[in-house]
Amino acid sequence: MAAQRYYFLASAGPLWARLLSSAWDRRPAHINRSGGSFRMPAQIGVTGLAVMGANLARNFARNGYTVAVHNRSAGKTDALLEAHGDEGDFIRTESLEELVQNLETPRRVMLMVKAGKPVDAVIDQLVPLLEPGDIVIDGGNSHYEDTRRREAALAEKDLHFVGVGVSGGEEGALLGPSIMPGGSQESYRALGPMLEKISAKYEGEPCCTWISTDGAGHFVKMVHNGIEYADMQVIGEAYDLLRSAAGLEPAEQAKVFTEWNKTNLSSFLIEITAEVLGHVDADTGKPLVDVVVDSAGQKGTGRWTVISALELGTPTSGIAESVFARGLSSQRSQRAIGQEVLEGREEQVELPEGFVEDVRQALFASKLVSYAQGLDMLDNAAAEYGWELKLDEIASLWRAGCIIRAELLDDIMKAYAAAEKPENLLFAPAFSKAIAEAVPAWRRVVATAVRLGIPVPVFSSSLAYYDGLRRKRLPAALIQGQRDLFGAHTYQRIDREGTFHTQWSGDRTEISADDTH
Amino acid sequence: MAAQRYYFLASAGPLWARLLSSAWDRRPAHINRSGGSFRMPAQIGVTGLAVMGANLARNFARNGYTVAVHNRSAGKTDALLEAHGDEGDFIRTESLEELVQNLETPRRVMLMVKAGKPVDAVIDQLVPLLEPGDIVIDGGNSHYEDTRRREAALAEKDLHFVGVGVSGGEEGALLGPSIMPGGSQESYRALGPMLEKISAKYEGEPCCTWISTDGAGHFVKMVHNGIEYADMQVIGEAYDLLRSAAGLEPAEQAKVFTEWNKTNLSSFLIEITAEVLGHVDADTGKPLVDVVVDSAGQKGTGRWTVISALELGTPTSGIAESVFARGLSSQRSQRAIGQEVLEGREEQVELPEGFVEDVRQALFASKLVSYAQGLDMLDNAAAEYGWELKLDEIASLWRAGCIIRAELLDDIMKAYAAAEKPENLLFAPAFSKAIAEAVPAWRRVVATAVRLGIPVPVFSSSLAYYDGLRRKRLPAALIQGQRDLFGAHTYQRIDREGTFHTQWSGDRTEISADDTH
Repeated sequence: MAAQRYYFLASAGPLWARLLSSAWDRRPAHINRSGGSFRMPAQIGVTGLAVMGANLARNFARNGYTVAVHNRSAGKTDALLEAHGDEGDFIRTESLEELVQNLETPRRVMLMVKAGKPVDAVIDQLVPLLEPGDIVIDGGNSHYEDTRRREAALAEKDLHFVGVGVSGGEEGALLGPSIMPGGSQESYRALGPMLEKISAKYEGEPCCTWISTDGAGHFVKMVHNGIEYADMQVIGEAYDLLRSAAGLEPAEQAKVFTEWNKTNLSSFLIEITAEVLGHVDADTGKPLVDVVVDSAGQKGTGRWTVISALELGTPTSGIAESVFARGLSSQRSQRAIGQEVLEGREEQVELPEGFVEDVRQALFASKLVSYAQGLDMLDNAAAEYGWELKLDEIASLWRAGCIIRAELLDDIMKAYAAAEKPENLLFAPAFSKAIAEAVPAWRRVVATAVRLGIPVPVFSSSLAYYDGLRRKRLPAALIQGQRDLFGAHTYQRIDREGTFHTQWSGDRTEISADDTH
Repeated sequence: MAAQRYYFLASAGPLWARLLSSAWDRRPAHINRSGGSFRMPAQIGVTGLAVMGANLARNFARNGYTVAVHNRSAGKTDALLEAHGDEGDFIRTESLEELVQNLETPRRVMLMVKAGKPVDAVIDQLVPLLEPGDIVIDGGNSHYEDTRRREAALAEKDLHFVGVGVSGGEEGALLGPSIMPGGSQESYRALGPMLEKISAKYEGEPCCTWISTDGAGHFVKMVHNGIEYADMQVIGEAYDLLRSAAGLEPAEQAKVFTEWNKTNLSSFLIEITAEVLGHVDADTGKPLVDVVVDSAGQKGTGRWTVISALELGTPTSGIAESVFARGLSSQRSQRAIGQEVLEGREEQVELPEGFVEDVRQALFASKLVSYAQGLDMLDNAAAEYGWELKLDEIASLWRAGCIIRAELLDDIMKAYAAAEKPENLLFAPAFSKAIAEAVPAWRRVVATAVRLGIPVPVFSSSLAYYDGLRRKRLPAALIQGQRDLFGAHTYQRIDREGTFHTQWSGDRTEISADDTH
């Protein structure tokens, strides 16, 4: 079957698009169906029509763009067009060749296929069909190193490869996600306006901006997801404390989270936590949260974030503990034994007055630390990969559309837009003040949890990071002494320049190690 | 210069070696120096004579083996032979060709070069010189994935490639390290006895055994190092608490650690901690630990361990927090600001009675968790990489020679040698009992540290892991609800089989997701 045009029924999209479509497109179907007739080319092609790809294609079409669509099996293409073909201007294609033939130049081809080998496979098929200046867009959750590799390979063929981070889930993809495009700045001129158009808006501003070169977009999306892991885990810890220590049932907690959503915690994740906790399972009449197996799944971006942080040498303990907490929750066989054989020997503790508000503050402070760590990681990645990452812009495009969208991000944006950019988010005056106010409650909550035997890995780890960051002397000096003793790893002194070694197995005099290393 | 033999002066080594050497080797130097004369081949060749390589070569020679030695620049070879040529039977060589020519078959060539590209470079030079059945040994700190790759490549040429983990620092390399060889079982028949001979001994048993195929030896060594990071960090946290909370000066603490070394903490690292804390800087008259810069270095095996754990999905929070603590300690610019602008708002706390003993118990319990996590990771790696890792044997060869050697490892060995192997170290009856006894002190210490503002990232993280492992319900159920709401990631139910999804944006009925995914 030849490419087939689907017609505009709703008059969506910008004026120029509507004019064009009325001029060129609203011709009788039989004209378009005849092979030889002229056809208005599509502004973008989308290949891979699983739910994310289909929703992004619809989003483009609903915003007035003509979208050529393709899927390896035509069934998905037809299903999309049958259900939503009336939402805008689609061109149905059955092969990548046909997809490419139906695009205006420079061609924009968006891959919405599974991250990993499928992306390379489609690229290999696509590249021979393209011309210099064309743009291949990967909108999946690809690893940024893959994106860097692909970008370099396609640049050699004068093609643009743009790794685009897209956050917002299925609904975001359809209605306006947060979009994080990398790749060349040149490619953004041809692609950016379209992405900005379909993106979420925060007070009218698009949640899409060029991040930086090559894999920067996918990197920033990865860190977004890492922060998301921590965000969800600290909510989980708060829930557990309110349930196990304060005895608040899920339905009561739904109200608490609804109230919290009016405070500085206001965010999508707090909002949906209230929804989940308020939901009653129809089968059992119990809170849904009590019938769900307590093993959290993961798709990989959280662990990628921590792996990258380790490579960069950035402490991201909050994100790491979140990933480990999910891992531990999934060790069901060990947990079954642990529940039997490990003794808690908990203390009897009277809850401090105002415990619920204390938990709220501990949640806020812990969340802030995870953001600080994630953003610190972006700074280090910029130095490592030669990206120019503007943290204010990145925070700004997380303000809407994505999973971690929160009022807090507007404040974070402002902190980094200040004349003096903070070296760590926590050093921005607004945040050092906010966290200082939360710290007494934070200490009370962690100490209480520890005594009650309730695990709060991210609450406690974030507090340890905070206390470490502000500490005059860390026991790392002792570690340096140990390393020098068993491995001659040398140390530095606080009172003069140089590198030193104590001759531990000799007379224990100190020598300069600058000469010998 | 042709290969030159260095003579046995000490009558070290086994009887057969001495007999052989008297029969063949104690000929006048001029015979060996003449190019055409017969020469007894070496049992092993070592290339790369930096301190670890030189000390291992000496260790072989001191144990009666004839060792052919080579270094890219002959200066190091000559320095070794000049200083230590009288310790045993060395053959000096100037090229890899010459090294290989001087080896008995199957040839055993040990690479002691810098991990990474230098190893590949030497392998590339070496392979054309070898014959089927020869054994290439990498005794450096190579990444196990590199070892797996190299082993596979050399196996195609009928060569054995053996990645060998060696722990014990410079002194261990000379006097007897803990040795963890991977590679084919066949290669161990020709190589193992020599490695066992030069290894550390624990009550007469060699601290060396075949670990498993390909990269298993380097993997186990890597996890050893990860555990070492945690071991050092928990000692650091104990030191910091004793110093900052209990006011014990380093000299007093040296005595405390000496006493602790007589308890279940008895270990090399506790022993050297006492030495380091007792050492006074000659220049200033202050404790050395007070003049050393408190930024801990790292060479990478700690972070490799955590990266691998993340890939395997094993929670190793103790090791991760140790790596992050070193990272944080090295962020000196941020720390300088943090000390100024971050407020502690600590509580006034009266120390609980018996605080020093409490700290000791918290240290023991936290250490146990790090070992449990590291060993759990070995179990998961065995499944992932098709290794047969015997945890009792691995624990046994860590009992002497290596950095983490400790009395505890004998107990760990026994726990895994039991008829019923524990699924987690903490479930072995001896350890679940020991940690239960420590847990009240552990809770007191962490709660106290948190209130005093002293960071104890591994103490608190390990306790969170312990409490998580024994917890009946984790808040992961809420996380599954959130994930299902925003991403349709589905969940399982506790009351029936299958995968489910609540139609959150619809009428909120639950559907089976088995059909749709």
